[in-house]
Amino acid sequence: MAQTRVLQPADNAYQYPLLIKRLLMSGPRYNPDQQIVDSNRGSYSYRELVERIHRLANALTEAGVQAGDTVAVMDWDTPRYLECFFAVPMIGAVLHTVNVRLSPDQIVYTMNHAEDDVVLVHDDFLPIIEGVKSDIETVKTWIQLTDNDQPGQTSLDTAGEYEALLAGADDHFDFPDFDENSVATTFYTTGTTGNPKGVYFSHRQLVLHTLAISGAVAAFDEMPLLRSSSVYMPLTPMFHVHAWGVPYAATMLGVKQIYPGRYEPELLVELIREHGVTFSHCVPTVMQLILATEGVKSADLSNWHVLIGGSALTRGLCKAGAEHGVRMYTGYGMSETCPLLSTTHLKPEDLELPPEQQIGQRVKTGIAVPMVELEIVDPDGQPVPHDGEAKGEVVARAPWLTENYFKQPDKGEELWQGGWLHTGDVASMEPDNTLTIKDRIKDVIKTGGEWLSSLDLENLISQHPAVAATAVVGVPDEKWGERPYALITLKPDENIGEDDIREHLQGFVDRGDINKWAIPEQMRFVEDIPKTSVGKINKKLIRDQIND
Amino acid sequence: MAQTRVLQPADNAYQYPLLIKRLLMSGPRYNPDQQIVDSNRGSYSYRELVERIHRLANALTEAGVQAGDTVAVMDWDTPRYLECFFAVPMIGAVLHTVNVRLSPDQIVYTMNHAEDDVVLVHDDFLPIIEGVKSDIETVKTWIQLTDNDQPGQTSLDTAGEYEALLAGADDHFDFPDFDENSVATTFYTTGTTGNPKGVYFSHRQLVLHTLAISGAVAAFDEMPLLRSSSVYMPLTPMFHVHAWGVPYAATMLGVKQIYPGRYEPELLVELIREHGVTFSHCVPTVMQLILATEGVKSADLSNWHVLIGGSALTRGLCKAGAEHGVRMYTGYGMSETCPLLSTTHLKPEDLELPPEQQIGQRVKTGIAVPMVELEIVDPDGQPVPHDGEAKGEVVARAPWLTENYFKQPDKGEELWQGGWLHTGDVASMEPDNTLTIKDRIKDVIKTGGEWLSSLDLENLISQHPAVAATAVVGVPDEKWGERPYALITLKPDENIGEDDIREHLQGFVDRGDINKWAIPEQMRFVEDIPKTSVGKINKKLIRDQIND
Repeated sequence: MAQTRVLQPADNAYQYPLLIKRLLMSGPRYNPDQQIVDSNRGSYSYRELVERIHRLANALTEAGVQAGDTVAVMDWDTPRYLECFFAVPMIGAVLHTVNVRLSPDQIVYTMNHAEDDVVLVHDDFLPIIEGVKSDIETVKTWIQLTDNDQPGQTSLDTAGEYEALLAGADDHFDFPDFDENSVATTFYTTGTTGNPKGVYFSHRQLVLHTLAISGAVAAFDEMPLLRSSSVYMPLTPMFHVHAWGVPYAATMLGVKQIYPGRYEPELLVELIREHGVTFSHCVPTVMQLILATEGVKSADLSNWHVLIGGSALTRGLCKAGAEHGVRMYTGYGMSETCPLLSTTHLKPEDLELPPEQQIGQRVKTGIAVPMVELEIVDPDGQPVPHDGEAKGEVVARAPWLTENYFKQPDKGEELWQGGWLHTGDVASMEPDNTLTIKDRIKDVIKTGGEWLSSLDLENLISQHPAVAATAVVGVPDEKWGERPYALITLKPDENIGEDDIREHLQGFVDRGDINKWAIPEQMRFVEDIPKTSVGKINKKLIRDQIND
Repeated sequence: MAQTRVLQPADNAYQYPLLIKRLLMSGPRYNPDQQIVDSNRGSYSYRELVERIHRLANALTEAGVQAGDTVAVMDWDTPRYLECFFAVPMIGAVLHTVNVRLSPDQIVYTMNHAEDDVVLVHDDFLPIIEGVKSDIETVKTWIQLTDNDQPGQTSLDTAGEYEALLAGADDHFDFPDFDENSVATTFYTTGTTGNPKGVYFSHRQLVLHTLAISGAVAAFDEMPLLRSSSVYMPLTPMFHVHAWGVPYAATMLGVKQIYPGRYEPELLVELIREHGVTFSHCVPTVMQLILATEGVKSADLSNWHVLIGGSALTRGLCKAGAEHGVRMYTGYGMSETCPLLSTTHLKPEDLELPPEQQIGQRVKTGIAVPMVELEIVDPDGQPVPHDGEAKGEVVARAPWLTENYFKQPDKGEELWQGGWLHTGDVASMEPDNTLTIKDRIKDVIKTGGEWLSSLDLENLISQHPAVAATAVVGVPDEKWGERPYALITLKPDENIGEDDIREHLQGFVDRGDINKWAIPEQMRFVEDIPKTSVGKINKKLIRDQIND
């Protein structure tokens, strides 16, 4: 270790810990009258946001919450949730954002595993909790959330309803300083096998992630995601990696925020129109639902910029959005990475191209954002060439990666290898540092000694004008090891067959884009592609169904 | 202290220290062919910047530099200096940016006080060093910097010339990780009394300052200072608070950078035109010199945004710039604060006003930037009302304030009081959180029991169309305690008298802007206003001259 001149963390005030409460200072200071909109309950100002966060801190404290406790939330996307994003960690407690799409058994598992002390639960989820209550081990207090004038009936013995508790609480809380490495949030990843695994992030990590995404990324002319004039509406759930951390950044900058509650596609389009939303982020599935609405046909979406993540942005989806004026960018990250690692990077020369020709750049995984290191490595952990062809596992270093899986230190040894977080994604990297995710390591189709990317194949199939969505998995094959198998859903009123798909793919073979052996012999037309609780294609389930 | 759940800084890699080397990753990754221009020596790419930083690290190591050593630089504003901004702290050494405008005695004082081990010195400063060499105590190695093909002759025994050393050095250096609280930079403040005082900043502090200024500030539509399409040219010297830290931010974002060498006003205008500079920062004096050039008359400066700091931006200067299309903003900070604390904040409704009517907002000290707390306090440290009238001393908290004055812990007790850094500035704050600096505490004119701001008075006098510059100080008065005294320089070919100034000020009295007793009885028309080495008005010297 180099013998540098090190400042000792002294008692004096120059030590200024990176705490989430610091993120709440500037937005209300820049723009106290800026609005935060609840699609169910009207809107209020940043000034009121601050006051409500103070009231919530007092209400939680009165409900027995202490620093170090865990407070869970089961809610739709609401300003209430935003208030919890701040108030819970600001009193030193840990915010557990419960994935409400998990099965009741899995929800119980995560609550017990996280050792939740207090749970804030929306009327809509009361039946779930009432059904599993006897299995819940650590929760001492329930607080009810409602969107109606009267809270729903419940057999739970609650400490009261959220709005009533806030109304009765003092409007000033003296938020303490503490160690910036204190855990602020936790939530559970939704793997397709085994129990969900808990990741967790410290105040320091969330502050640094916020500074980086609000700042360094915002500075790029070609991707005006968060500016003072932006109108922001999250479309990845707030329980999922803090809605990608964007609510923290939007609040720090004093940006107008729209919270849609439940994701009802026609309502979402109406909110985008009514409030002139300029920036959202979502998984491809949500975008597909929005583009399939009636409302979208008459909406002007040419100011709407959308960061797509969770699954790959396909050319087909990017093109379909562009026809409505929607500008999409790829964001890459995962629950373990807080999440942002990379984004689309459009160079000035790309922006001069017509929208159609920009798609090639937009669907790439992009370039690592400031403060992030990405590398692609072979199974021995050695970097593979950045030639746009060689594939390797994506590994990352950054100041905002989870330390481990909560109470599963053995899993951490797989996650962290050789000083890098291993993502489980396979990618190539171009000489200009642009990453393109090719597949999950476990979804790569190993056929005839080659690695065939299931995502590449999905991309090509999705470009057929009759195709609405597709999923490709590898299935065992005696001769080749594995062969690709395609599930396909067609657009309404379309009626094509396997030969049309093969002919479509043959076109790419003829142009040299893929090899002949990439064309699947087997495919099936289906009504729906199986998805996980967060909207990703559930390839494990598809493989299991095919193998059965 | 709240009992939060604290992550232990473990050996594992999730701990990612905030080191200056992290700031060098993304710019070259986004834009390896982006140019960095040396007005004397042509340009090179970000790719070459990285290579040269590696070579410099090897050259310094070969010259004996170790982690913990101090490396001083005496240079004009050049890409070489930018290379030192990175390479010196990246090897764990401390970069001392020598204020070359100090007297030779003061330069020796700072070199001895900082305990410089190695000094990189430009030809132009060799005579200074040669003249005081026998007084320099700790320097073991000199490295010569030159802008000519042949280095200047010197009696110093140098280790060689910079370019020759780089050419002979290996192009790969394995930059180590170390504690983010390691000191990265140091420099000396230029007070008007006593010896210069050393401030110092850690890697962590500089990384956080960079993220905040490149990020949160860049996100504001109304102040497009650093965007991917920006062209940046510093106009506050690189020895002065790292050119306000902007070169770090510009490099992180991959922005085109222009280094002007010496500040020759006609050359500066030519560089702005030639390269289409969009963003600079400077003290008012430099802007005055630029606006007084011949070249400016035919230049289109309507894309040039300039952050003004160091001294107050006067209405007169802001207006003079606006006539050439220059958009100026106020930035507030000081050597002790790394420096940024606040900037002009133009609200959407301000931007709809004609340029003339925006001046009122632009000359205000602005609103604290994200992660910064500003307060105004009375002599007991209690906050005074935010009513736009009450005056108090500005105090600050932020993650990038100097811990102390180097080797002068007693001075630190004055700097840090009650957990806040005391700036020595007097300001009022409006209900919307906008700060307006009224004066330095020691420059406030205490007349008849009231505090009269010398800056307010300068602002009003400067609005007379014949006035080029002015300085107002308090002079002792038997009856009133103190009375204002104005020094005034006139524009070329102007010829007005004291009565014209008083008549001009009477207009403000009639409109209720100031009290009758604010009009100075005493004034003097002069050729030049005395300035400090960094271009600030030297009020101490003025008072001393008047009192003599």
